[in-house]
Amino acid sequence: MLDRSDPEGEITKAAAAYSNWGRWGEDDVLGTVNFIDEAKRREGAALVRQGVSFSLSQSFDTNGPQKGWRRRTNPVHTMTDTGLDAVHGGQGFPHGFGGADDVIAMPLQCSTQWDGLGHIFDHGNAWNGRRADRVVTSEGDLVTGIEHMAPHIAGRGVLLDVGRVIGTDGELPDGFAITEQHLTATVEAHGVTLGTGDIVCVRTGQLARARRDGWGDYAGGPAPGLSFTTAGWLHRTEIAAIATDTWGFEVRPNEFEDAFQPLHQVVIPNMGLLIGEMWNFEALAEHCATDGVYEFWLTAAPLPVTGAVGSPVNPIAVK
Amino acid sequence: MLDRSDPEGEITKAAAAYSNWGRWGEDDVLGTVNFIDEAKRREGAALVRQGVSFSLSQSFDTNGPQKGWRRRTNPVHTMTDTGLDAVHGGQGFPHGFGGADDVIAMPLQCSTQWDGLGHIFDHGNAWNGRRADRVVTSEGDLVTGIEHMAPHIAGRGVLLDVGRVIGTDGELPDGFAITEQHLTATVEAHGVTLGTGDIVCVRTGQLARARRDGWGDYAGGPAPGLSFTTAGWLHRTEIAAIATDTWGFEVRPNEFEDAFQPLHQVVIPNMGLLIGEMWNFEALAEHCATDGVYEFWLTAAPLPVTGAVGSPVNPIAVK
Amino acid sequence: MLDRSDPEGEITKAAAAYSNWGRWGEDDVLGTVNFIDEAKRREGAALVRQGVSFSLSQSFDTNGPQKGWRRRTNPVHTMTDTGLDAVHGGQGFPHGFGGADDVIAMPLQCSTQWDGLGHIFDHGNAWNGRRADRVVTSEGDLVTGIEHMAPHIAGRGVLLDVGRVIGTDGELPDGFAITEQHLTATVEAHGVTLGTGDIVCVRTGQLARARRDGWGDYAGGPAPGLSFTTAGWLHRTEIAAIATDTWGFEVRPNEFEDAFQPLHQVVIPNMGLLIGEMWNFEALAEHCATDGVYEFWLTAAPLPVTGAVGSPVNPIAVK
Amino acid sequence: MLDRSDPEGEITKAAAAYSNWGRWGEDDVLGTVNFIDEAKRREGAALVRQGVSFSLSQSFDTNGPQKGWRRRTNPVHTMTDTGLDAVHGGQGFPHGFGGADDVIAMPLQCSTQWDGLGHIFDHGNAWNGRRADRVVTSEGDLVTGIEHMAPHIAGRGVLLDVGRVIGTDGELPDGFAITEQHLTATVEAHGVTLGTGDIVCVRTGQLARARRDGWGDYAGGPAPGLSFTTAGWLHRTEIAAIATDTWGFEVRPNEFEDAFQPLHQVVIPNMGLLIGEMWNFEALAEHCATDGVYEFWLTAAPLPVTGAVGSPVNPIAVK
Repeated sequence: MLDRSDPEGEITKAAAAYSNWGRWGEDDVLGTVNFIDEAKRREGAALVRQGVSFSLSQSFDTNGPQKGWRRRTNPVHTMTDTGLDAVHGGQGFPHGFGGADDVIAMPLQCSTQWDGLGHIFDHGNAWNGRRADRVVTSEGDLVTGIEHMAPHIAGRGVLLDVGRVIGTDGELPDGFAITEQHLTATVEAHGVTLGTGDIVCVRTGQLARARRDGWGDYAGGPAPGLSFTTAGWLHRTEIAAIATDTWGFEVRPNEFEDAFQPLHQVVIPNMGLLIGEMWNFEALAEHCATDGVYEFWLTAAPLPVTGAVGSPVNPIAVK
Repeated sequence: MLDRSDPEGEITKAAAAYSNWGRWGEDDVLGTVNFIDEAKRREGAALVRQGVSFSLSQSFDTNGPQKGWRRRTNPVHTMTDTGLDAVHGGQGFPHGFGGADDVIAMPLQCSTQWDGLGHIFDHGNAWNGRRADRVVTSEGDLVTGIEHMAPHIAGRGVLLDVGRVIGTDGELPDGFAITEQHLTATVEAHGVTLGTGDIVCVRTGQLARARRDGWGDYAGGPAPGLSFTTAGWLHRTEIAAIATDTWGFEVRPNEFEDAFQPLHQVVIPNMGLLIGEMWNFEALAEHCATDGVYEFWLTAAPLPVTGAVGSPVNPIAVK
Repeated sequence: MLDRSDPEGEITKAAAAYSNWGRWGEDDVLGTVNFIDEAKRREGAALVRQGVSFSLSQSFDTNGPQKGWRRRTNPVHTMTDTGLDAVHGGQGFPHGFGGADDVIAMPLQCSTQWDGLGHIFDHGNAWNGRRADRVVTSEGDLVTGIEHMAPHIAGRGVLLDVGRVIGTDGELPDGFAITEQHLTATVEAHGVTLGTGDIVCVRTGQLARARRDGWGDYAGGPAPGLSFTTAGWLHRTEIAAIATDTWGFEVRPNEFEDAFQPLHQVVIPNMGLLIGEMWNFEALAEHCATDGVYEFWLTAAPLPVTGAVGSPVNPIAVK
Repeated sequence: MLDRSDPEGEITKAAAAYSNWGRWGEDDVLGTVNFIDEAKRREGAALVRQGVSFSLSQSFDTNGPQKGWRRRTNPVHTMTDTGLDAVHGGQGFPHGFGGADDVIAMPLQCSTQWDGLGHIFDHGNAWNGRRADRVVTSEGDLVTGIEHMAPHIAGRGVLLDVGRVIGTDGELPDGFAITEQHLTATVEAHGVTLGTGDIVCVRTGQLARARRDGWGDYAGGPAPGLSFTTAGWLHRTEIAAIATDTWGFEVRPNEFEDAFQPLHQVVIPNMGLLIGEMWNFEALAEHCATDGVYEFWLTAAPLPVTGAVGSPVNPIAVK
C-alpha cells in the first residue's frame, strides 16, 4: 500500500525498483523505445485489416487549454502571406502565381505531445544515470534530444479505454486513480494482449468531458490518470510507450500530500519510459467499441527539433 | 514541346488540362489525398516485410538552410527550463522533481514539410475553384486548413531515386529538369509499380550535396526538380502525394523566362496535389539500393495547426 | 446628445466633422504627431524643474492581462543563455567570460503601447484617406508604419488624473464615460493649460484597481474611458497624442448598442490621432498630487518595427 | 602596455582595478545608471535649445545584420489582421470598423539595444559580486532584470564622433581600436565636457559603411570599437552609459589572441556599466557637425521585460 505521507520514500523505492539504467548500454538515448523491434513492427503492420486511419491528435491553436503556467501557452499561428494578399495585394509574383505562408510560436508540449527523455529529472538525474545539468542546458538536450527517436516510434498500438470499461458514460471522474487492476480489467474486457514494445493508449474520457463542458482546469487541474502504483506494471510489461488523453498522464491531484507528478519522476528519468499527453482517442475509441478490435498499427513520429525535451505529435492509428 | 517564352499560356493550358476541380465534390478539402483509400492502406501495410523504419525528416534547428526570403527563417528553439535549473537553480518542485521544457518559433515550412492546399493560388483561385481571398485570410486557411488532412496521409510509399538512376554519383545537378521519361525510367529501374493513391518520394540527391558542400543556395537557389512537363504525369498517375529532397519541388531555375514556381501553380490549386519538400531520403535510399525494394508503408502526418497552409512533418517509412 | 441607437450615423458625422485628412498634405504619415514642433519641445524641456523621472510603462511578462482575444496574448520571454550555463555549463567562451541572452515573442500591443496609424480603419479607409488594403497587407503597414514616428514623440506632457478629481478614492468605475466636461474640470483642478502639440495622459485609476483586485477583464471588459462625445475636444485641442491606463482608451461598454470601439474608429483613421493604451500613471500621479504640478517633459518613443501598426513603449516623464 | 598574450591576467587586473562592487550598496541593481541624478537631468534638459529630436535607433525587421550566431536572429514581424482583411475579409466588426494588429518574435538584442547587467559574467560573477547562477536562470534575470532601469535612463547625452574626428571620410576601419587618447581628442575637437552621469554616444562610422556596402559581417565580424585599454577611462569618467553604432561595442578582433569580448567582461559585471550597441548616430552626427554642438538631452528607455538581460531601445536625442 502506498504511504501517502512519504512521497520521498515511495519515489525513491520505485525509482530503484523500476530502473532501466544501463539496460541498453551506458550510451543509450532511447529508453523504452528500444523495445520496439522489427518483429514488433511486422506484428503491428499485420493489424491493418481494414485500412481505416485515425488521427489521435488534438488541435493546435489559440483555443487550447493552456493557461500560461511556467510559460506553457497555447500556440500562436500567424500568416506571412494570405489569399487576400494574393488577390488584392501586390505579392509581386508573375503570371498569376499567388501564395500563402505561415509561422507558429508555441511550447513544444502545448497540445498532443511526447515527453522527451530530457523532460523530467529525479534528484538531478536524467535518463540512464546522467546528471541533468550535463544533459539539458540553455542550448537544449545535448544527449537525449527527441530527434534521436525520430525514426523509431512506429509499431503495435493498443487502446485501453478505461473510461468506457470502468467509468460512467465513458468517462472517469477527475482525481480517479487508474490502478494496475483497472488496466488489467480493461485489457481483458477488450480481449487484447499487451506485451513488450507495445504503444499503449489509455483513454480516460476527460477530453470528451472538456469538449462538452469547456476546458476549465484541463491544463494542470484535477484529472483522472495513472496511479503512482502502476509504476511496476509500466516497468514489468515492457511497453515502449504510453499516452493519455489528459494533460498530465498521472492522476491529479497526485496521490501524496505535497508532491508533483511523482510517477513522471519515476518513469521518465529512471525507467526511460516514453510518455504522451493530450492525445485524442475519441474517434478511435468509437471505432474500437463498434468492432471490438482494440489493437492497430500506430505511428507517432516526433518532430525532430534538435535538442528538444518534448515534441508535438500527430499520432496515426490504422486498423 | 514547352514554349519557354509563354509561361502564361503554358500554365493556363496545363491548369485546365489537369484540373481536378469538382472531382470529389464541391466541398472537397483534401484534393489528391482522396486517392488514398482503405484498400491502398492495406496494400501499403503489406509492404512491411522486415519491420525496419526510417525517418524522412531533416533537422529542425537554426542550422537550416533558410535565409529569410519572405520571412522564411530557420526555427528558433529555446528552453523555458533546463537541467541546469533543476540541479542548480530553484525550480521549486518537491522531493527531487526537476524538469526541462521548451518552446519554438518557426515558419511551418522551414524544414521537412507538406504544402497545404491553401499554400498556392492560380490567378486568385485556390483548390476546387474557391477564390483565394475567401480561403486564406489573416486568420488562416478557413476552408482547406491542413488539419483536414490530419488522419489520412498513410499508405503505400514509393521511392524514385532519380539521383541514383539518372544522376552522377547519385546526384542530379542543380537546374536538372526531371521529366516523365526520367520518372518512368526510374520506376522501371527500381522494378516498382506506381498507381492511384501512392505517395511518391523523389530523391534528387541535392540534399546529399548540400550536406557535403554546405547549404549554399539550397533554399531558393538553383536545384534539380520536376519539369513543368510532368504535370500530366502527376495528374494521370493519380498519385496522392509527392515529395522531394529539395527546397522547391520543381526544377530551378524554372523552365520559363520570368516565372515563379509554375508547376506549383498548376498542381496545387488546380490538381489539388499534395506536395512535400525538404524531405531526407538518404537512409531510406541506401537501404533500397541494397535490398532492391523501393516500396514501403509510409505515414506522413501533418501537425494539425488550425488553418495552416503547410505543416512540418516527420515522415516515417517502414519496410 | 448622442443618439445611442444610431452608431452608424454618429460615427459618420464625427468622422466627417473631425477629419484631419489632407491637413498635413496628401503624403502625410504622422497625423497629429505633426503638432509637436520644436517650440513645443523647448516648452516641454523647460518643465524639467526637479529632474525626477518616471516610467509610465506596465510590465512585459506572462502575468499580463491578455486572454488571447484575436491572438492578443501576453509576451513570452525565454532565455537562450543563462548564468546557470555560464557557471555550470559549457558555454565555450575563454578566460572566464560568460553570458546570458534572451528572446521574446509577443503582440506589439500586449502591454503599454502606442496604436499606430495603421491599426484602425473606418469603412475601409485608413489615415489620410488611403484605402486600408493599400496600407496594411501581410507584409505590414507599407505607408504609415510606426517607424515613421520614431524620432518625434517627445515634448510637453500633461497628466489629467480624472480618477482623483472625479472618481472615488482615486478611481473611476468601469463603464464610466469621461466627457469633455470631466476633462475640462480636471484641467482646471490641476491648474494646467492644454494646447496644440501636447501629449495628454488620462488616468482613470482602473489599473490601480486591477492591481489590487486582480486583472479580471481588464483586457477587453468594462472599463472607464473617454466618451465618444469627446471626439470634438480631441480634435479642437489639437493635442498630439493621448494615452490612458486602460486596455481600450474609450469607455467600455461603448456608448452604443452594438458597436465596437467607435471613438477609435473616428479618431485614428480620420483624425490621425496618436493613441496610447495600458500606460501606468501611478507613480507619476502620486508625485503630481503631492507637488501640484501636472505638466512635464515626456518622451514616448515607439520601437521602429518596420511596417508595424502599433508598438510597445516605455514612456518617460521628467519633472 | 597591454600584454596581448595574457588576456587572463589583463582581464583580472582590470576587473579588480575598475570594480564598482558595493559602490551603491550590496543590493544595488542599477550599476553606473546610479550616476544619473536629478541635477544631471536638469543639466540635460537645459541642452534643449532648438527642440529638434533624433531617433538613434536602427530598424527592426528581417533585413537586419544578424546571422543566427547563438540564436541571435533578426526580428520576425507578422500580422494577425490587415487592411486586406478589413476591406475584403470578414473581420466581423460592426459599422465599418476595421483593424490591423501584429506580433513579433525576436532576440531582445537583435538591433539597437541596451545590454542589461545580467548579460555578461566574469568567472561566474555578475554585477555587484553576485554569483551568475543565482542571478540569471531559465526564468530570466531574477535580480538585475532590465525592468529596474525602466524609469532612469534620461539625462545629458554627448556624441563623440570619433569616425569624423579620427577616421577617414567619417569612418574608422574595422579592427580600429579606439583608445583613451582618441576619445579625449574627440572630446576636445567637439568642445564638449564629459562627466559623471553622462550618456556617451561613440560613433565609429561602421554603420554608415554597412549601409553603403551591405551588412557583411557587421554582426560579429571585425569592427572598430573601444580598446580594452579604455576600461580605466570608462571607470574614471563615471559616465552612466556608453553606446556605439557597432554590433559589439569593443574593437574586433579583440586585442588578445584567443579572447572574447574582454572589455565587456570587465565593465559589465565588475563596473556595472550600461552598454548600448547597434545605435544609429547618422542623423544626429550630421546635425552636430553642422552646428558644432555635441551635447543634448537623451532619453533611452529600455522596454521593461521582466527578467530581461537586454532590451531593444529607440533612444531619442533632443537638441
